[in-house]
Amino acid sequence: MPKVNDQTGPFYVEGAEPGDTLVLHLLKVRPNRDYAVSTHLPNFGVLTGETYTAMLNKPLPEKTYIWKLDLERNVGMLDLPNSKIGKVEIPLHSFLGTVGVAPNFGEAVLSLTPAEHGGNMDCVETKEGTTLYFPIFVEGGLFMLGDGHAAQGDGEICGTGLECPLEITVKVDVIKGKSINWPRFEDDEYIMVASSTRPVIDAFRSAQVELINWLVVDYGFNRWDALQLVSQVGVSRIGNVVDPKYTVVAKFPKIYLPTRQ
Amino acid sequence: MPKVNDQTGPFYVEGAEPGDTLVLHLLKVRPNRDYAVSTHLPNFGVLTGETYTAMLNKPLPEKTYIWKLDLERNVGMLDLPNSKIGKVEIPLHSFLGTVGVAPNFGEAVLSLTPAEHGGNMDCVETKEGTTLYFPIFVEGGLFMLGDGHAAQGDGEICGTGLECPLEITVKVDVIKGKSINWPRFEDDEYIMVASSTRPVIDAFRSAQVELINWLVVDYGFNRWDALQLVSQVGVSRIGNVVDPKYTVVAKFPKIYLPTRQ
Amino acid sequence: MPKVNDQTGPFYVEGAEPGDTLVLHLLKVRPNRDYAVSTHLPNFGVLTGETYTAMLNKPLPEKTYIWKLDLERNVGMLDLPNSKIGKVEIPLHSFLGTVGVAPNFGEAVLSLTPAEHGGNMDCVETKEGTTLYFPIFVEGGLFMLGDGHAAQGDGEICGTGLECPLEITVKVDVIKGKSINWPRFEDDEYIMVASSTRPVIDAFRSAQVELINWLVVDYGFNRWDALQLVSQVGVSRIGNVVDPKYTVVAKFPKIYLPTRQ
Amino acid sequence: MPKVNDQTGPFYVEGAEPGDTLVLHLLKVRPNRDYAVSTHLPNFGVLTGETYTAMLNKPLPEKTYIWKLDLERNVGMLDLPNSKIGKVEIPLHSFLGTVGVAPNFGEAVLSLTPAEHGGNMDCVETKEGTTLYFPIFVEGGLFMLGDGHAAQGDGEICGTGLECPLEITVKVDVIKGKSINWPRFEDDEYIMVASSTRPVIDAFRSAQVELINWLVVDYGFNRWDALQLVSQVGVSRIGNVVDPKYTVVAKFPKIYLPTRQ
Repeated sequence: MPKVNDQTGPFYVEGAEPGDTLVLHLLKVRPNRDYAVSTHLPNFGVLTGETYTAMLNKPLPEKTYIWKLDLERNVGMLDLPNSKIGKVEIPLHSFLGTVGVAPNFGEAVLSLTPAEHGGNMDCVETKEGTTLYFPIFVEGGLFMLGDGHAAQGDGEICGTGLECPLEITVKVDVIKGKSINWPRFEDDEYIMVASSTRPVIDAFRSAQVELINWLVVDYGFNRWDALQLVSQVGVSRIGNVVDPKYTVVAKFPKIYLPTRQ
Repeated sequence: MPKVNDQTGPFYVEGAEPGDTLVLHLLKVRPNRDYAVSTHLPNFGVLTGETYTAMLNKPLPEKTYIWKLDLERNVGMLDLPNSKIGKVEIPLHSFLGTVGVAPNFGEAVLSLTPAEHGGNMDCVETKEGTTLYFPIFVEGGLFMLGDGHAAQGDGEICGTGLECPLEITVKVDVIKGKSINWPRFEDDEYIMVASSTRPVIDAFRSAQVELINWLVVDYGFNRWDALQLVSQVGVSRIGNVVDPKYTVVAKFPKIYLPTRQ
Repeated sequence: MPKVNDQTGPFYVEGAEPGDTLVLHLLKVRPNRDYAVSTHLPNFGVLTGETYTAMLNKPLPEKTYIWKLDLERNVGMLDLPNSKIGKVEIPLHSFLGTVGVAPNFGEAVLSLTPAEHGGNMDCVETKEGTTLYFPIFVEGGLFMLGDGHAAQGDGEICGTGLECPLEITVKVDVIKGKSINWPRFEDDEYIMVASSTRPVIDAFRSAQVELINWLVVDYGFNRWDALQLVSQVGVSRIGNVVDPKYTVVAKFPKIYLPTRQ
Repeated sequence: MPKVNDQTGPFYVEGAEPGDTLVLHLLKVRPNRDYAVSTHLPNFGVLTGETYTAMLNKPLPEKTYIWKLDLERNVGMLDLPNSKIGKVEIPLHSFLGTVGVAPNFGEAVLSLTPAEHGGNMDCVETKEGTTLYFPIFVEGGLFMLGDGHAAQGDGEICGTGLECPLEITVKVDVIKGKSINWPRFEDDEYIMVASSTRPVIDAFRSAQVELINWLVVDYGFNRWDALQLVSQVGVSRIGNVVDPKYTVVAKFPKIYLPTRQ
């Protein structure tokens, strides 16, 4: 376990101090290899007994799939000789499975575990073009990134995506004196909160409450108006339900934000 | 409670027998009124203590929002004088909050509760153009529909959507001798399973397993290939997390299905 | 499924009306047969995939155990030739697995499902000498009882207890104008609340809140004092985690109640 | 947060290596002060919104209770002037709220969090006379102990027990080459497993599976016989449902174990 989910980092950011917010602009997130690997393992994944959802059933058999990647056309291809369809070709949407800072309170957390510091969120939103915000808990922030995925469905059901190395270009900023509770993301369409815990409902709840607080504090929404709007136009995606903590991403369309001045 | 969530029906379908599948083609789902109502109530909704997630905190204050509907432009408009943005206009996407058949085993279930028979799933997929499949548990199927929503975000967080009456045209079919475990939907893009239970993770699990079984039985996928594909291209949406049972919709893109013959 | 978990009743109680509380004094709860049966079934029980916690693993093999009952000595005996211990003898503690009234809101609930009306709580507290209180939802209350267990561990892990018929003597009372939210029990040692829902934590929460409200309303405790005492002397038992809803029993020792006058 | 839940240690145990089991014999666990403190805090505890079960409700008011301890009579006394009962006296049952070793995989975990390494399990079983077994993950084991409780109810509902310093005498052993997955306890009456995770049901599951494996490997039970016996005579207690992970203790009566030779 300590040998999987390789990361690059940690990176020390000059001027980043506890209580600030780290900003990572993901300028480039691209695979650089012509294949990706996915597998389901015994005692891992959401549709089988695992360490915590422990079962007496026999574990699933291990099975590994090698996807070919065509980086020109940005597609992945898989032969499925045992299925009627024979093969599939899917569009790639590459993203960082894991990205985050050093955790709070002097803790050291395995790169497999997502939490308030980000980490192994396995959510497709950490892709090229997205800006990520993380709470800074230690001097220098100490961010890291890794666990490249060329594609993945909601929940990462079997326990893995299209695992492959990525080439990353990231621009780093610090917002001084701005404190947040959970990782926040922003792309052209949405502002987002990614909360990670078990069970799913609590990841959902803590993401929504952080999103509502964000709307109130930064965008001048009345608290109940924010609840009403999040209830009617909010989007919620299940990032992963296979890691030691599950990740839910709560999204609010930027079209309903007032213009900042 | 027994007076809310009005339904139309039940409708007895000639030839529908236990073990068959009821098919509802939603040909038309349109609001017919120029306003919709949304509210958050004390002790209801996912971000407050409620009957089961019981808390000692004081309940939230009740607050009601009246949305204007412009049916020509298919938008909803809400004044928000207490928020900086002042007002919002959102596209409508009308759907049946509740649709289903009579439940199994001689049970009688309040229209507020979704389950294997469908019911109050509060998922946006039950919209115009979608075909719905339900297991038939009693002679005639006895389907009903109601709980019109002109729009709703994922999870129906505050407990209500844009509640309004709808005009519905539905075409009814029966698939004889075909038995399913959970409601299934189909539109131009996806085949889908809607599973309802608490907690969320079990609604997620039972929806995915039914979806995988569907791929295996009807579309000739090897079981592990189906798991791999659902893991990489599957979409999962949280329908509601406020009803007596929560609903998760597991979706598989039809583009990855073999051509049926 | 509709053929298992046999019940006796329903019994119409003269003078029982909605909003009253039904009182059942369990004067006698005794097995009347010299054997009991326990089994674990495929896709049933908490340590295997089941309908809702759906898994892709192969189901467990079915296995049935026949326990001999010695009613003189009130013990059960089981031969275990495949285990080093060879055989065991355990004390019996017979109780009603299922006891309750007709549910609320005109619903009809399978006898396998516990809820606000009681039902298949599978908790060892519904034994000889205990007084049970149920909310009355329909005229006459319509109580039923069944699902005899000669013994059972916490949680009913494999899905069944020592299933056997019981002889029951019950004395029936009605408390007019007294309304409760969940079944309440009382024996020499404890007052208790049995709450049933999924997930476990919500059964726990709703049982504790009902218990605290009981202490406040009937026994003159300040709300926060009740929370403090329940936190320090409260006992919580997991009744079942195998039925469609799980049951937690929250208990408060009667020694800490003020004398009623 | 990093300043609460004080611990003594870590203690390096000569000869303790990863893959061994650490044995702590709790020879003495006694309060040494004449008062204990309990409190409920805003946003902490199971009957209020907290960091993960995030709610929009206003937090509970903070309230602190000072219990007098009579160490001669081994009782705690609390004045309750706002409640009809006026005051209560309860028997003490002192135990270590927190006891464990260094965690696995190079992680560093806040002393507030229980997990595979033990830690803040807040379960009443870690009392005088109990023998504790922990998996050893690092050289020397590095066990610590603290968080003295003079008494506590099941679940530690308000978030704290009767917090007070304890005098501890512990005898330390190492079982070479014996590997376990979760903390195990043993007293005169039971062998026990304490599993910690969220949600409760998964702490329950992983504790039962570890207990069944223990019965199979060390006591010669057939797997299904072990399941049957745990189902009929097993006891399960909810340790805490307030810490970052919840703890369930699964117990098996030693009277049903074969004599070891």
